[in-house]
Amino acid sequence: MTAAPDWTALTGRSLACCLEIAAHTEEPGLITRTFLSPPMKAVHARLDTWAAALALPTHLDAAGNWHAVRRSQRPSARTLIIGSHLDSVPNAGPYDGILGVVAGLALLEALGSTPLPYHIRVVGFSEEEGVRFGVPFIGSRALIGTAGELLEGVDAGGVSVAQAITEYGLDVNELPAAQVRDDVLGYFELHIEQGPVLEAGHLALAPVSAIVGQSRLEVRFSGKANHAGTTPMRLRRDALTGASALILAAETLARHLPGLVATVGSLTALPGASNVIPAEVSLPLDIRHADDEVRLWAQGELLAEGERIAQQRGLTFRHESRLDKTATPMDAGLTGLLGRALNDEGHGTPPMLSGAGHDAGVLGHVWPAAMLFVRSPGGLSHHPDETMLPGDVEAALRVGLRFLHLLAEQEDNRG
Amino acid sequence: MTAAPDWTALTGRSLACCLEIAAHTEEPGLITRTFLSPPMKAVHARLDTWAAALALPTHLDAAGNWHAVRRSQRPSARTLIIGSHLDSVPNAGPYDGILGVVAGLALLEALGSTPLPYHIRVVGFSEEEGVRFGVPFIGSRALIGTAGELLEGVDAGGVSVAQAITEYGLDVNELPAAQVRDDVLGYFELHIEQGPVLEAGHLALAPVSAIVGQSRLEVRFSGKANHAGTTPMRLRRDALTGASALILAAETLARHLPGLVATVGSLTALPGASNVIPAEVSLPLDIRHADDEVRLWAQGELLAEGERIAQQRGLTFRHESRLDKTATPMDAGLTGLLGRALNDEGHGTPPMLSGAGHDAGVLGHVWPAAMLFVRSPGGLSHHPDETMLPGDVEAALRVGLRFLHLLAEQEDNRG
Repeated sequence: MTAAPDWTALTGRSLACCLEIAAHTEEPGLITRTFLSPPMKAVHARLDTWAAALALPTHLDAAGNWHAVRRSQRPSARTLIIGSHLDSVPNAGPYDGILGVVAGLALLEALGSTPLPYHIRVVGFSEEEGVRFGVPFIGSRALIGTAGELLEGVDAGGVSVAQAITEYGLDVNELPAAQVRDDVLGYFELHIEQGPVLEAGHLALAPVSAIVGQSRLEVRFSGKANHAGTTPMRLRRDALTGASALILAAETLARHLPGLVATVGSLTALPGASNVIPAEVSLPLDIRHADDEVRLWAQGELLAEGERIAQQRGLTFRHESRLDKTATPMDAGLTGLLGRALNDEGHGTPPMLSGAGHDAGVLGHVWPAAMLFVRSPGGLSHHPDETMLPGDVEAALRVGLRFLHLLAEQEDNRG
Repeated sequence: MTAAPDWTALTGRSLACCLEIAAHTEEPGLITRTFLSPPMKAVHARLDTWAAALALPTHLDAAGNWHAVRRSQRPSARTLIIGSHLDSVPNAGPYDGILGVVAGLALLEALGSTPLPYHIRVVGFSEEEGVRFGVPFIGSRALIGTAGELLEGVDAGGVSVAQAITEYGLDVNELPAAQVRDDVLGYFELHIEQGPVLEAGHLALAPVSAIVGQSRLEVRFSGKANHAGTTPMRLRRDALTGASALILAAETLARHLPGLVATVGSLTALPGASNVIPAEVSLPLDIRHADDEVRLWAQGELLAEGERIAQQRGLTFRHESRLDKTATPMDAGLTGLLGRALNDEGHGTPPMLSGAGHDAGVLGHVWPAAMLFVRSPGGLSHHPDETMLPGDVEAALRVGLRFLHLLAEQEDNRG
């Protein structure tokens, strides 16, 4: 056994590492770091430095995921993967994703030379946010062998995923080898909450019970463009007033149906002149719930409401599904172990839902997965003011270390 | 006196001239012709051809307005200006504006050698739509001497009004000379209705009583960007749902207040990602009514409603006035004469409001103005499918000629 870590110092170095990584950005003054963008190299170098101090070998796989491996001496050892993502949305905060990778290294440092009956692979995923190619989870999908079908996607500059991999200096032919063929016992991800629930409950940490399912629909109202001054109200077929009615209907349904969230994040009205009645309005409708049946029922209700609105207003209504992601429950056994670790460290928090998607939602389809959420002051997410309380991060690292020890006991008992 | 015109042939040639002019466009396949754009030269050449056939001298003034003048032999003759505009919105129809200029030439042709006690100046205004420089009526403002203050405005390419004039081959220093210093007895404009009112009433023509007043406000709701999956409905500050509530409130008010029209023609939601709650929504609010007091009352109501919505939803609400144009009544005497001409030709239509702005709204502040609206099948405006019924155009030309004769009687009696 190693001496107890200096938690204050380790927490401080973990937060400092997140802020150093934040300085590696595509947009000076902002934090923006998309899949395989040039600043990602400096991020890998920073992580390599910490891993080298722990004498751990590191490598990049062909999808640009960063790996550091701590080998167990036990011949039959399985592997625990600890990770999160290194990419960001445009103008992001410094902790979303990064914290889970840095925490993985901090936990390896906290372990010191303590022998464990399992290997630990810390992974920094190259892509989770879906910014550059419009599809998320390229990194974690490479780990489970399903990223190959994404290679032909192109970014705004016409560069394909395959080209991006080559231009970064990686070998796209090696992508199949990025699939992890270890005997994986589980995946553990520590992540900022990205919402206000923990703060509202005065809680630092919570285990995640499930990642909610998500529908994304592109809906469109079509009416008739006409002159804003000369067309009497009763003769209008205004696509924007119709869209406004649907936006408010989605809000009302979600306010009344527990656990449902419904969001319209953008809107395009054409032709788009101040003196012309809008003829075409399209908008994305994002609907999420932990229960897939409830989510699909709500989706059906809102599409029926869109039809009703269109009929009343002489409009036509169309919709297309862009995403239909089922809910991913976290593993009951691994999450139970995480709950024990939380209890042991004095956090009696019940599990909560994750409204956001995570790498754990991809890996959780293949391996047992558990997630630990850490409070986000102000409930901020995807925002430059995103921050973390050092006390919360220290608590998360303490719980994480306890979790690793409980997992060691379990693996020992497994024999 | 000249022999009665061949109305069918004259109508056919007038419509054909409009379609020939439509072929002179900045965007092949569409009708787009902005202020002093290259295709305007071919338009002027086409009009010159017709004027030359009538032995009328033509010229361009320094604002690019096209003029053809028919001189009276009477020493004390005053001037009637007949005109409309030659520019168009992007992807326009072929008649908006153009018809009023072509009709001016057709009326001069119909007059033949009939002596009149007043001069006629047919003007094709260079700019009415406000597309290139964001401000409308540059042409008619030059005629009344108020275009000089617009010279520093710049287009999307950074070219100023003054540069555009120079690049077109005109002398910007001559702009003051574009002000018409004739003794003007009135202005007469024939224009497609740009709305569905005449068609709904099975009417071909109507005189215009007034051009409505118009407010254009830029309003903005500010809330807080946050994650669409993780932010519970009750903790959101969504600027787009707030904006939707205002859009519907504007529609409801306008539906219940006779003569009011209120339109939101476009909307920008930021940051604009499908999975982020909108933090900033801005939109133009266009409000029109023939009675300026009613319009300003409605504007006040909607701004108060915006404040109420913001307060209920934890948003902030701001607004800026972009346009506050008072209503312009047409001249009672000249419009009465036009009403007599309509009656004489079998059109007992009462005057109607113009919900759109027109050159007559500018010139009407300085000289007596009258307008004649011609039915727009389908009520279309600013739309490539804009069309006209030949019978309606013939009726308009007959009424126009009758109006010119009634005006001659009036000028004769004036002595």
